[in-house]
Amino acid sequence: MSEVKTKAKQARTAAAVLNRLSTDQKNKALQSMADGLRNHKDEIIDANREDLERGQAQGTSPSLLDRLALNPQRIDAIAEGLEQIISLPDPVGDVLDSFERPNGLQITKIRVPLGVIGIIYEARPNVTVDAAGLCLKAGNAVVLRGGSSALSSNRKIVEVLHSALALSDIPPDAVQLIESADRSSVDEMLKLNGLLDVIIPRGGQSLIRNVVENATVPVIETGAGICHTYVDQTARPEMAEAIAINAKAQRPSVCNSMETLLVNSGFAAKHLERLAEQIRSAGVEIRGCANTLHILPWASPADEQDFATEYNDYILNVKLVDTLDEAMAHIDRFGTRHSECIVTESTPNAERFLQEVDAAAVYHNASTRFTDGFEFGFGAEIGISTQKLHARGPMGLPALTSTKYIIHGNGQIRG
Amino acid sequence: MSEVKTKAKQARTAAAVLNRLSTDQKNKALQSMADGLRNHKDEIIDANREDLERGQAQGTSPSLLDRLALNPQRIDAIAEGLEQIISLPDPVGDVLDSFERPNGLQITKIRVPLGVIGIIYEARPNVTVDAAGLCLKAGNAVVLRGGSSALSSNRKIVEVLHSALALSDIPPDAVQLIESADRSSVDEMLKLNGLLDVIIPRGGQSLIRNVVENATVPVIETGAGICHTYVDQTARPEMAEAIAINAKAQRPSVCNSMETLLVNSGFAAKHLERLAEQIRSAGVEIRGCANTLHILPWASPADEQDFATEYNDYILNVKLVDTLDEAMAHIDRFGTRHSECIVTESTPNAERFLQEVDAAAVYHNASTRFTDGFEFGFGAEIGISTQKLHARGPMGLPALTSTKYIIHGNGQIRG
Repeated sequence: MSEVKTKAKQARTAAAVLNRLSTDQKNKALQSMADGLRNHKDEIIDANREDLERGQAQGTSPSLLDRLALNPQRIDAIAEGLEQIISLPDPVGDVLDSFERPNGLQITKIRVPLGVIGIIYEARPNVTVDAAGLCLKAGNAVVLRGGSSALSSNRKIVEVLHSALALSDIPPDAVQLIESADRSSVDEMLKLNGLLDVIIPRGGQSLIRNVVENATVPVIETGAGICHTYVDQTARPEMAEAIAINAKAQRPSVCNSMETLLVNSGFAAKHLERLAEQIRSAGVEIRGCANTLHILPWASPADEQDFATEYNDYILNVKLVDTLDEAMAHIDRFGTRHSECIVTESTPNAERFLQEVDAAAVYHNASTRFTDGFEFGFGAEIGISTQKLHARGPMGLPALTSTKYIIHGNGQIRG
Repeated sequence: MSEVKTKAKQARTAAAVLNRLSTDQKNKALQSMADGLRNHKDEIIDANREDLERGQAQGTSPSLLDRLALNPQRIDAIAEGLEQIISLPDPVGDVLDSFERPNGLQITKIRVPLGVIGIIYEARPNVTVDAAGLCLKAGNAVVLRGGSSALSSNRKIVEVLHSALALSDIPPDAVQLIESADRSSVDEMLKLNGLLDVIIPRGGQSLIRNVVENATVPVIETGAGICHTYVDQTARPEMAEAIAINAKAQRPSVCNSMETLLVNSGFAAKHLERLAEQIRSAGVEIRGCANTLHILPWASPADEQDFATEYNDYILNVKLVDTLDEAMAHIDRFGTRHSECIVTESTPNAERFLQEVDAAAVYHNASTRFTDGFEFGFGAEIGISTQKLHARGPMGLPALTSTKYIIHGNGQIRG
């Protein structure tokens, strides 16, 4: 049997045990995992050095090496992340509904673990720990398939997690690491219906595309974000400026950052020049539509392809629109239904925007950068769902559960 | 552009309008649809006759012709189904959560329509109306791809629904019927990411398999049911008998009927002979494991293949087990995680079974036949989900919705 199938089967067997763990047992294991990471810091850093050296030899980009790199502070932060998960409420067993039917059947709907979750991700070794911790707290086994560039780090980390699980009387099989660097191991995971209950891809667009297009296992799609901010005619200029700069430049590499600023032409006539200067001085390159270029002759032109691009970089498209409807039509055409914002002092316009724009999160007078499990107060996040099924927007622990109907009868049969 | 893509795009445009309809507008349209069906009964029956004659000429099986056939009573029942949907609460706009963050952001999670739902089904023309009605009430547009054997009926029905929608000032494009009989129209629907938000297959196993294996659009899997009833040592014999006969023979063709009866060997020694005779006299063929055949020499032998088969017929496997664990292991191996039952007077055994068996619905002392939207009191049902994502078990209107976070700020930016 292949590595992937063997490990998924082991995870499935472990899942039946995890399903029944008490919150206390799971929390003890999470603490033991955090302690283990701190206690084996040196070994983890040694393993990570192997990955970094291999990466350097292979000419890996500095930004990728940075994401891959571990140091004592980063390991402490990862361990603290596990401790934060301890403090979160355990969703398993929550009663979501309970009712009696006229025939006396007592029906209760409760939260149960999903079962076995597959995570396919890239170079960040912190995802290995985060995902294992979140899945464990929600009672799930996990099959991790990280990027081959982080294999030595991930192996050592999972070794530490396995010892912690064993110490806590939880089957170490609950956390599985696929070590095969071969792409076929990903392809195999995508088709493991019956062994994996869901796959969550975490990474760049091509990774996510591959999973969505080829998986027969249900997928929760995460991550792609072409987010817009629409500055309406009545927007307060200083608020528009603060929100636009924050949404674009506070951390451009993430999915909830802004890619296109839509500006009402009435507002633009008075305020665009100053607004754009402020954005430019935050280090952002501006690409504008034809009307924008009349006001900002120094900007470069933006074409359709630009409006359809998630830059994840210090680049911003600016487009003038005459009406709220035109702004919403642009968002409908180019948005990825992630996070969209209107800056306005008009309550009717705000309400129409919030109601009609189809996205996981819609904002009135606040930066799209808030679409995040921590910022929403969920205490953790397994990703931001950009699909409409199961979970939408930032996913906390409840997104890692399913439900089950428990029915108590006293001999009822159907007539 | 292909028929499928053209109609899906029209549905998507209509969905933006449906999203904003009031409950009252939707209910008026549903009433107008019901009235239309009653007023055009004769034309619908004429169209249906074409389908039936073509089916007969092609040698279609009598059971399939029966599912396809419409008569005045059936059309009345279909119209009443729409009127039942009117009486259901509208899930759109429901506030699921609402909280304020320390920075003053007001976050509200509301129910919104999914958008455009694809339904792929077989010969039953009633599904055309049910699905259109349920999707409309939850604010969704629908793309219907019914079996080609029902095409004349579906065409006439959708014509009636379109007139009713137009009368109610709702874009008729909200209900689309794919008329191409070509399998490639199904294949095309399965890949329409960005135009369809979800596909729900309704039909036999091969239809569902095809959808699950080939769709890149998210799917809600429905329908496959290998359901078990476990009769524990302490079960009351007359209750076990009533539940077993009901679960198997009240309507064997449906997914929540029983395929395998697991009997504790202690119970079997005393009561199996009589229990099996009763089941047999309900017209059921019994296939037994080796130990069963010692007690029921008249039964035929059951093999592994039988335990893995959804008969949907008057055939029942019987297997003796020595323990609750053995019963649960059998269910884990052969069950499709649909509906599972334990008949017992032992509370600890019942609790273990309800807790540990992984299925959409788990029963103590009641027939698995109750897994149904109407029996659960949901008032309607778009199907029974056998997957763990999004919805599990009978799906009412809320399963046809997604959620959205609406965030009100006053200039907040992320630090």
